[in-house]
Amino acid sequence: MADIPARTELKVTTGPIRGSRKIHVGPLKVAMRAIDLEPSSGEPPLNVYDTSGPYSDPNARIDIMAGLPELRRDWIRGRGDVEEVEQREVRPEDNGQLGPDRSGGVQPFPNVRRRVLRAKAGANVSQMHYARRGIVTPEMEYVATRENLGREMLRDYVRDGESFGAAIPDYVTPEFVRDEVARGRAIIPSNINHPESEPMAIGRNFLVKINANIGNSAVASNVAQEVDKLVWAIRWGADTVMDLSTGRNIHDTREWILRNSPVPIGTVPIYQALEKVGGIAEELTWEIFRDTLIEQAEQGVDYFTIHAGVRLPYIPMTAKRVTGIVSRGGSIMAKWCLAHHKESFLYERFDEITEIMKAYDIAYSLGDGLRPGSIADANDEAQFSELYTLGELTKRAWAQDVQVMIEGPGHVPMHKIKENMDKQLEACGEAPFYTLGPLTTDIAPGYDHITSGIGAAMIGWYGTAMLCYVTPKEHLGLPDRDDVKVGVVTYKLAAHAADLAKGHPAAKLRDDALSRARFEFRWRDQFNLSLDPETAEQYHDQTLPAEGAKTAHFCSMCGPKFCSMKITQEVRDFAAKQNQEATTFIAAEEAEAGMAAMSEAYNEGGRELYIGANGREHD
Amino acid sequence: MADIPARTELKVTTGPIRGSRKIHVGPLKVAMRAIDLEPSSGEPPLNVYDTSGPYSDPNARIDIMAGLPELRRDWIRGRGDVEEVEQREVRPEDNGQLGPDRSGGVQPFPNVRRRVLRAKAGANVSQMHYARRGIVTPEMEYVATRENLGREMLRDYVRDGESFGAAIPDYVTPEFVRDEVARGRAIIPSNINHPESEPMAIGRNFLVKINANIGNSAVASNVAQEVDKLVWAIRWGADTVMDLSTGRNIHDTREWILRNSPVPIGTVPIYQALEKVGGIAEELTWEIFRDTLIEQAEQGVDYFTIHAGVRLPYIPMTAKRVTGIVSRGGSIMAKWCLAHHKESFLYERFDEITEIMKAYDIAYSLGDGLRPGSIADANDEAQFSELYTLGELTKRAWAQDVQVMIEGPGHVPMHKIKENMDKQLEACGEAPFYTLGPLTTDIAPGYDHITSGIGAAMIGWYGTAMLCYVTPKEHLGLPDRDDVKVGVVTYKLAAHAADLAKGHPAAKLRDDALSRARFEFRWRDQFNLSLDPETAEQYHDQTLPAEGAKTAHFCSMCGPKFCSMKITQEVRDFAAKQNQEATTFIAAEEAEAGMAAMSEAYNEGGRELYIGANGREHD
Repeated sequence: MADIPARTELKVTTGPIRGSRKIHVGPLKVAMRAIDLEPSSGEPPLNVYDTSGPYSDPNARIDIMAGLPELRRDWIRGRGDVEEVEQREVRPEDNGQLGPDRSGGVQPFPNVRRRVLRAKAGANVSQMHYARRGIVTPEMEYVATRENLGREMLRDYVRDGESFGAAIPDYVTPEFVRDEVARGRAIIPSNINHPESEPMAIGRNFLVKINANIGNSAVASNVAQEVDKLVWAIRWGADTVMDLSTGRNIHDTREWILRNSPVPIGTVPIYQALEKVGGIAEELTWEIFRDTLIEQAEQGVDYFTIHAGVRLPYIPMTAKRVTGIVSRGGSIMAKWCLAHHKESFLYERFDEITEIMKAYDIAYSLGDGLRPGSIADANDEAQFSELYTLGELTKRAWAQDVQVMIEGPGHVPMHKIKENMDKQLEACGEAPFYTLGPLTTDIAPGYDHITSGIGAAMIGWYGTAMLCYVTPKEHLGLPDRDDVKVGVVTYKLAAHAADLAKGHPAAKLRDDALSRARFEFRWRDQFNLSLDPETAEQYHDQTLPAEGAKTAHFCSMCGPKFCSMKITQEVRDFAAKQNQEATTFIAAEEAEAGMAAMSEAYNEGGRELYIGANGREHD
Repeated sequence: MADIPARTELKVTTGPIRGSRKIHVGPLKVAMRAIDLEPSSGEPPLNVYDTSGPYSDPNARIDIMAGLPELRRDWIRGRGDVEEVEQREVRPEDNGQLGPDRSGGVQPFPNVRRRVLRAKAGANVSQMHYARRGIVTPEMEYVATRENLGREMLRDYVRDGESFGAAIPDYVTPEFVRDEVARGRAIIPSNINHPESEPMAIGRNFLVKINANIGNSAVASNVAQEVDKLVWAIRWGADTVMDLSTGRNIHDTREWILRNSPVPIGTVPIYQALEKVGGIAEELTWEIFRDTLIEQAEQGVDYFTIHAGVRLPYIPMTAKRVTGIVSRGGSIMAKWCLAHHKESFLYERFDEITEIMKAYDIAYSLGDGLRPGSIADANDEAQFSELYTLGELTKRAWAQDVQVMIEGPGHVPMHKIKENMDKQLEACGEAPFYTLGPLTTDIAPGYDHITSGIGAAMIGWYGTAMLCYVTPKEHLGLPDRDDVKVGVVTYKLAAHAADLAKGHPAAKLRDDALSRARFEFRWRDQFNLSLDPETAEQYHDQTLPAEGAKTAHFCSMCGPKFCSMKITQEVRDFAAKQNQEATTFIAAEEAEAGMAAMSEAYNEGGRELYIGANGREHD
């Protein structure tokens, strides 16, 4: 991205996240971040979920020319159901090199595997297939440890939330993960050719996840910049990344991204297939599409967006919409159907596509090609007709033990959001829902990370398993480095708000730790516990730059005399002195009695309170 | 604010808002903004609600030394129930000048009225009092015209929304406004000494409003900067502004703000009263507080936040909270109660306070001094005990026909937001609810305009009448000019999302107009119809700066070949050509038939589609 600070050609963003320590938990060494709090807090470090991979580990050696270590290599091969095959030969059209060379200067990844993995004849290597046969894979164990985050810290935990029928356990066992995957309520995207990925689950009974989209810039950019888009997005919390690159060099760019990605990578194969026919949708064929699936499967793509629900009869339903068809894939298939007046080949060849998916364990992300592109088009006949078709396809994929999630809208006013969740659960048998926002109004371009963050938090609460981020540049332009960060952090807070509201056992730990830090004026802890410590400290310092202000027991908003938190501390001290039970209602009379004594104590010592008003503090 | 561009001493931000034209509607000349659309759209101008006052009117002469014209002067005096009295003499302590002069350089407003208005002995000049006697005031008529915004444009309108029991009319009549005010379901804050204000209503059956807080900076700032904070906030959409100034020169600063404000101004009188006793809460007395009310009433403050619900018995309930008492006013009163082991004088003198309010038509904003300051403290006993006391006080204020709204939280996870609304409606007899956010998680300092924008949109949908904005600097520092704008726009979009979800008849007009502009690539219309045209255009230009790009029929995200909206237009053209009814479901068979003919037409003309792929466009 244009504004990435100049750096040596192949360097990406590395180093610990401010205030965090990389830790590796359990026999599988599950990566997490530990946030150490000031000794005065008397609190243990808080462990938080970590998507940033080895890039934030000072002990890891990062060389994007070599790629990341193959965490899952032995797990995959150890199952004895895969074989090595020659990788399909890369052709010029794979990189959009039809006609004259339009290379943007992206060199091939130097460390390409010549031989790739595929399921042995007749075998099925999907996590769902193992799960349904009762096998708990290392991937499932890894997910269990990762999701349990902090649950072991919980004492006499009282569940507080409304989960709308979800089944969030107090403690996640590997067996629970297996059962959720077997039932299709969760997926673990894990292509056998992407052994670098750290297993994660997408499902309504796990932490709400977020996805960030990246893509090669129209302006020629070097590979380090392309890889850094990935590294930057996961640094701030992206759980998966979709590579939506189009045009030139997309095969090579994708190879660079996959070999250096610790998170699952998703793509929309129809984009590349369209490039192979020079952008003329009606010239797309099943053979070209199928070849593209194999190409990407062998590279290690973990999930495919397939717009198989855009059926011929639904297309005319969009004619009177305010914004018609706004999905690229959806419009490409609509155009193909119109040109050939035929049913979509994605729909007709669906079972053949599934055959390919199961040979690599690629998950479906069934695309909502007819999603609404405006408030006016929300929840209409075209949208829901497609949704019910996606439900039918879900069952067909499950019949072959292939993992599935369902893509959702889009633009939806608040009062129509829950209907989307309810219909999806019903139509798709609780397969994970993966939504884009939804945006709750159309009138704020430039702020669509917020119009959609509102809808994302709500639909996440209702049961959506993964939220696809929206940046401030949505509808207007290409996001830069800052936009990606703002988009990711906005969606991270929306996902967390959803986890809180669902009553996720571990979610509240971080809020409470930060609020205690806030109340006790532990500024550094407050920064370090936040989703974006750098911005929090920078904002604080704009008003009170002095180092001293970071330990001062008052803040810039109220100043020393007005600090309500100081006064509250007095309330607390008095209540304590009186040994009075302060948590239950006290009738006015009793209170007066208790207060009488307190007041004397107060008038003796209390006047001292403001002696140190300009920073010095009474005890 | 530090980053206000240098300008002549007493200049503030003026000039039209980009793409808008100031208009004045009806006999009362109600100010609105008309957004003209490109001729190609064939659409009439869209009228939008306008809070920016004369500052955005090129025909208005702005002189902050003189103040704004007195729009309501004749209405107020024409009722014959007010008398002129000598203004209470300004004392040094009113400006925090106790002891040595600490003047920050704020000169007195040059155009102070020596004589101010007060109700004649025995009279009650509140809008509620008129309403209950069946009188429709010009203020009510002004509100009716202002709220009807675009409703007259609606043809065969079908109500679409969930209003949770609100009673939003298809058309707002002056009689409807009168009835809502009479019932206490809406207020029109309108101090008879603030004739410069443009009447507006705060109520569940009207458009959701937003408030912005401003305050004198700790760093000495000149009066133009203080006034410009107001002008800047209303320019982007603040419906009311609260002056939370503390310390020095607050009397004079408030005079400058009131004389130049077209929106109602709210204050928290206890802040100034505390200054008058040198910041020692326990030295506050009823006499000092009462004198402060008179002082601010005569200046023209339209609503007072009064923390009369912080009762002695509730204070110990906060002792075991994670963040105790976070309201300044609440903690000041808690401290006073503790020091004197007495019930709050605000509670005990409530009826006397009401006597003062009705003599000037000042509305109560009953403060939630015990609101939760963290997710952990949401919806607890202290909070709801206070809420029910506020309900009791509401009825006492209504007994004297004084207008009331109720302040609400704070920090509340999504699953506990609706309970706040439901309890408020029940406890306070549908008096308007006015909430701060609520923030839906504590873990994102630096992004609390978003954590709270989520809660604000939801509680606005549930029935909250006004949303108090939160800026990105919340919890960290003092907002600058950019923070104020981001906070206001974020809350404006949240309020609009709420209006949409409630099914407000006029709300959807703007979304639809913008979405049509988006679909038809009318970029300038898209910018002009947005809440922040400047940011929208700036973001667009970062990717496609060329003027041509503003009329190009594709956008930077997809490029010419991928434009799904172009393809949708084809779907639409074909559907039209076939004269087929495209809005109802078509079975596959019929569709195939219809499509057959379409496909021929397509293969003749369709191939031409991409001839102009790099910007030139087919018709």
